[in-house]
Amino acid sequence: MAQKTALVPRLAIIGMGLIGSSIARAAKLKSIAGTVSISDASAVVRARVGELNIADEIYENAADAVKNADLVILCVPVGVMPNVAATIAGSLKTNAILSDVGSVKATIMHEIAPLLRSDIHFIPAHPVAGTEYSGPDAGFAMLFENRWCILTPKDASDGAAVSLLQRFWEGMGSLVETMSAEHHDLVLAITSHVPHLIAYNIVGTAADLETVTQSEVIKFSAGGFRDFTRIASSDPTMWRDVFLNNKDAVLEVLGRFTEDLSALQRMIRWGDGDGLFELFSRTREIRRGIVALGQEKN
Amino acid sequence: MAQKTALVPRLAIIGMGLIGSSIARAAKLKSIAGTVSISDASAVVRARVGELNIADEIYENAADAVKNADLVILCVPVGVMPNVAATIAGSLKTNAILSDVGSVKATIMHEIAPLLRSDIHFIPAHPVAGTEYSGPDAGFAMLFENRWCILTPKDASDGAAVSLLQRFWEGMGSLVETMSAEHHDLVLAITSHVPHLIAYNIVGTAADLETVTQSEVIKFSAGGFRDFTRIASSDPTMWRDVFLNNKDAVLEVLGRFTEDLSALQRMIRWGDGDGLFELFSRTREIRRGIVALGQEKN
Repeated sequence: MAQKTALVPRLAIIGMGLIGSSIARAAKLKSIAGTVSISDASAVVRARVGELNIADEIYENAADAVKNADLVILCVPVGVMPNVAATIAGSLKTNAILSDVGSVKATIMHEIAPLLRSDIHFIPAHPVAGTEYSGPDAGFAMLFENRWCILTPKDASDGAAVSLLQRFWEGMGSLVETMSAEHHDLVLAITSHVPHLIAYNIVGTAADLETVTQSEVIKFSAGGFRDFTRIASSDPTMWRDVFLNNKDAVLEVLGRFTEDLSALQRMIRWGDGDGLFELFSRTREIRRGIVALGQEKN
Repeated sequence: MAQKTALVPRLAIIGMGLIGSSIARAAKLKSIAGTVSISDASAVVRARVGELNIADEIYENAADAVKNADLVILCVPVGVMPNVAATIAGSLKTNAILSDVGSVKATIMHEIAPLLRSDIHFIPAHPVAGTEYSGPDAGFAMLFENRWCILTPKDASDGAAVSLLQRFWEGMGSLVETMSAEHHDLVLAITSHVPHLIAYNIVGTAADLETVTQSEVIKFSAGGFRDFTRIASSDPTMWRDVFLNNKDAVLEVLGRFTEDLSALQRMIRWGDGDGLFELFSRTREIRRGIVALGQEKN
């Protein structure tokens, strides 16, 4: 089944949720990998991956799945990633590339790097793509199409290994950008982590109101709230780990958000219509930029 | 062109933005109105309505458009609604029904009711539907399909008039519910007004960060932020007026939101993963309710 012409002769994916299973699908569909070997801690997930027929080899133990793999991608929640890395470290082949898809990069790098032999090329990555669904059935091969993937190699990283990982993600359909792990965590705090936190929070606030019933909240959600409920239905484990592992950047951005919200609250209290109008007009510009860049359909 | 069998022989719509132009389209498509007479303060909009051919009669002055109308619907921003009502009050025919589509109900009722003769049936309404687009080109006949429309009649309102307005909105495709204006404003504060405020705020915060460029915010928006930018690109005039006119309910809900957010912030600071996980799991339930009720596609 292995093709000698594939960019990655042997690819191992640890964790077959939304992201891992999408990588497996795209790797086969686009012939980027010769053999796709996977592992997942859940027997139910492993059985389902077998039924879906989206991997060539399925292992119970991650250490078995990574043997002889040229590229290993960790697709597990950020909180268990160092444990998984420790489990597989001794089974990685010489010069293997180890990468991941975590939404947080600095803590991951600091915790995983010391676990690895010096011949392993560890290059963290983050495909900025996803949906609110979880599990192997939620994945699809086109998930990464026209989405950004951020690589956060260390300055000392092997150039050829970085280049191969870049070509791998371009093969997935992604646009690739490189930056430091610390800058990544700050950028994602504003574009992803704090927005998710706010969405979770407003949905929680709505659920706790005594004066408005949950049934009313659900019925009249078309006014804006339902977009927040979609975001706030994302995987709880993944997001718990994101906030625990990107604490500093999230608290920094959250501080700014709260400060700005207090100013808005004051405008409402004192009837400052011009101030409100100014902000509401300014925010349209950013939307235009997103639409122009093709990161949104409309 | 008028049909004697139409539910509303003569319908007048003042303001031909997203909502007004959608009503006009649906009223013709579904033969709910015999003649549709419209007015808009903007000559550009009036000309465009003529080109789109979505109204039978187009007037510069609102007072001319409402003459002999059985049902008049004000589709202008909440802030100018009392002025428009004062302008047309003297031209309304005996027993005409006057309604509106404003997102705020209590202040509107208190300001408009005193302007009207006792034979006018004033029944405020709010179709909970919309998009982030504005203007007559943004409207479409199916906008209200399977969406709720809330009527807020006073206890003394004429039963036959309320019933006719209910049938009108059911004809538009809406599900109709009746409640007090004050309760409406509280429900909408949580399902619509505060979510919009938060979306505007986070987009503003992102624009002001010195450490992350606007280009980065736009590129990596797929992580959650871009949903907020869509909401935060809604019509600035409409939303300014909403916040100025629903001050008390918005400040009340915003107070709850901020309190809850402080608790979340503390969980992150102190690494309370269980607390985060509990909230992130609980919010999924509300999403399931929305999907089950058919207020969302997926």
